[in-house]
Amino acid sequence: MKNSALGIPLSLSEPARAAPPPTDDIFDKLAAGDAATLAKCISLMETGGPAADLIHRRICAKTGRAAVIGFTGAPGAGKSTLIDAYIAVLRGRGAKIAVAAVDPSSPVGGGAILGDRVRMRRHALDPDVFIRSVASRGHLGGLSESIHRVVDVMDAAGHDFIIVETVGTGQSEVEVAEIAEVCVVVNAPNMGDEVQAMKSGVLEIADILVVNKADLPLAQRTTKQLRDMLKLRRSRQDISILETVATKDTGIDALSGAIDGLLAKRTGDKQKSRQRRLRRLIAQTASRLMNDRMREFSGDAMDELMRKAATGEIGIAEAAAQALSLVRP
Amino acid sequence: MKNSALGIPLSLSEPARAAPPPTDDIFDKLAAGDAATLAKCISLMETGGPAADLIHRRICAKTGRAAVIGFTGAPGAGKSTLIDAYIAVLRGRGAKIAVAAVDPSSPVGGGAILGDRVRMRRHALDPDVFIRSVASRGHLGGLSESIHRVVDVMDAAGHDFIIVETVGTGQSEVEVAEIAEVCVVVNAPNMGDEVQAMKSGVLEIADILVVNKADLPLAQRTTKQLRDMLKLRRSRQDISILETVATKDTGIDALSGAIDGLLAKRTGDKQKSRQRRLRRLIAQTASRLMNDRMREFSGDAMDELMRKAATGEIGIAEAAAQALSLVRP
Repeated sequence: MKNSALGIPLSLSEPARAAPPPTDDIFDKLAAGDAATLAKCISLMETGGPAADLIHRRICAKTGRAAVIGFTGAPGAGKSTLIDAYIAVLRGRGAKIAVAAVDPSSPVGGGAILGDRVRMRRHALDPDVFIRSVASRGHLGGLSESIHRVVDVMDAAGHDFIIVETVGTGQSEVEVAEIAEVCVVVNAPNMGDEVQAMKSGVLEIADILVVNKADLPLAQRTTKQLRDMLKLRRSRQDISILETVATKDTGIDALSGAIDGLLAKRTGDKQKSRQRRLRRLIAQTASRLMNDRMREFSGDAMDELMRKAATGEIGIAEAAAQALSLVRP
Repeated sequence: MKNSALGIPLSLSEPARAAPPPTDDIFDKLAAGDAATLAKCISLMETGGPAADLIHRRICAKTGRAAVIGFTGAPGAGKSTLIDAYIAVLRGRGAKIAVAAVDPSSPVGGGAILGDRVRMRRHALDPDVFIRSVASRGHLGGLSESIHRVVDVMDAAGHDFIIVETVGTGQSEVEVAEIAEVCVVVNAPNMGDEVQAMKSGVLEIADILVVNKADLPLAQRTTKQLRDMLKLRRSRQDISILETVATKDTGIDALSGAIDGLLAKRTGDKQKSRQRRLRRLIAQTASRLMNDRMREFSGDAMDELMRKAATGEIGIAEAAAQALSLVRP
């Protein structure tokens, strides 16, 4: 049992009351920023279940101090390299940083292939930079639930900045916007149709648009396209567009400054932002609970409901409402 | 009002009973495969709400005839070109085909940028090939709900094959596997770390793995890597690996044959597959209903719940269960 050091059974089938409470030692070590303890706690947060809930409950009141920054964008835009360079700027100020890189590896299986060390090599040996891949579960609400908990644990471990990196195609972008106080969307020149097509939605969630690899041909065209798109959306005139060359540390100070500017504006909303994250986590968990119950639910009443829906006797909305009342606690 | 021709108000705020029932004319035209009617119905399915529910209810009993094939894979793997070539094979047999291309464009805004005509150009003028972009909503359950309804409408309109194309990074892959009877995962040689990392999860949902652009250097290495990964998963020894060059129509007959083989095996399960899709649609809708209620829910009881969760007095699972009982219908 991988996490037996925590004294918490990992099995999800064991009821919550069977789990011995985590010892205070764990919480002391976590608050002191002990990397091994943090790593174990994150694994538990990803696994979910009663053990995750117990730990999360204990650390919940100690969260809300860290700034949470989201980085998203298509594969190949250079997100990891950009984050690597951004971390260097933050480290220059003495900040402690944790990175949760949401790995698209495994929608069903759950196992991440990308090692943490592949990403952000520059800081691999720095004890004040904690980098962790978090597997994207792909289940309804799955990513949000675990990433919210992971961010909370990183927060409780005393990190000043928590960077959440996601590969941006649809769902995960929205989720990063829900978690992060500032959301950076990374673009690169000349990335093909599908990537271009992403931008319309991305404008809704971006606080800062970065055109990375700005030394490549066509970079200026990409920047211009983004500017033109912004002009069409009066509601988002406040989005900055910045050019960077992450591999050469070009433009990173400007990016860091833009992020700081947004964070400073939002300081008053810090507690509100924490409340919103918590509420979202509760809603996601409730939704997943309900979905689990729906999947497992069977019986004559459900069969009858399915028959009625299949023949069109009742519509899907009515069927869904009836199903909810069938499975309610 | 764009869809006034259907005699159905589009506004979601109008209660279901206020909507006049769609005229029989619409359903006759849809059953006859009229493209304009189908396009309007699909728009309504995407919009959702009472009007979508009314139409879906009427067509529900007429679904279950089409074969639903999923194509997923990373941007740049050549999915659209491969589908284009596959459609040519199907058209040679006289089949009617509908394509629902899930567009990653707009997680929040909902508007698709990619015109339908950009994709699958070869068949743009063929009246028996209906191609439509469906915007990925990015909301919890949103994609599944609308794509299920869109596939049902395409089915009721008399298409023999319905092809669902998604960009594969996480969530959408799982959803395509839930909808499709046969799921084709498209790879291309040498696509970088993030793409490689996807494969582990993809094995869980793939029925057929395609290495497209097989005339490129490194194609054989990619095929070998996939074979090696399959060997490690004894449970999925049945997955075929096929090499194609979609731009030259190479390997497409073999792909079509492999799909037919799987469909033939599953003929007996056709009704079961239809039932599963319906059940999933009901579950998704119920889950979204619950989530909507959770988001809107407020009041003293909810504030108290949030306070308890924030201070760690209760855990998230307990808070979620209590929240469910607060918002239940």
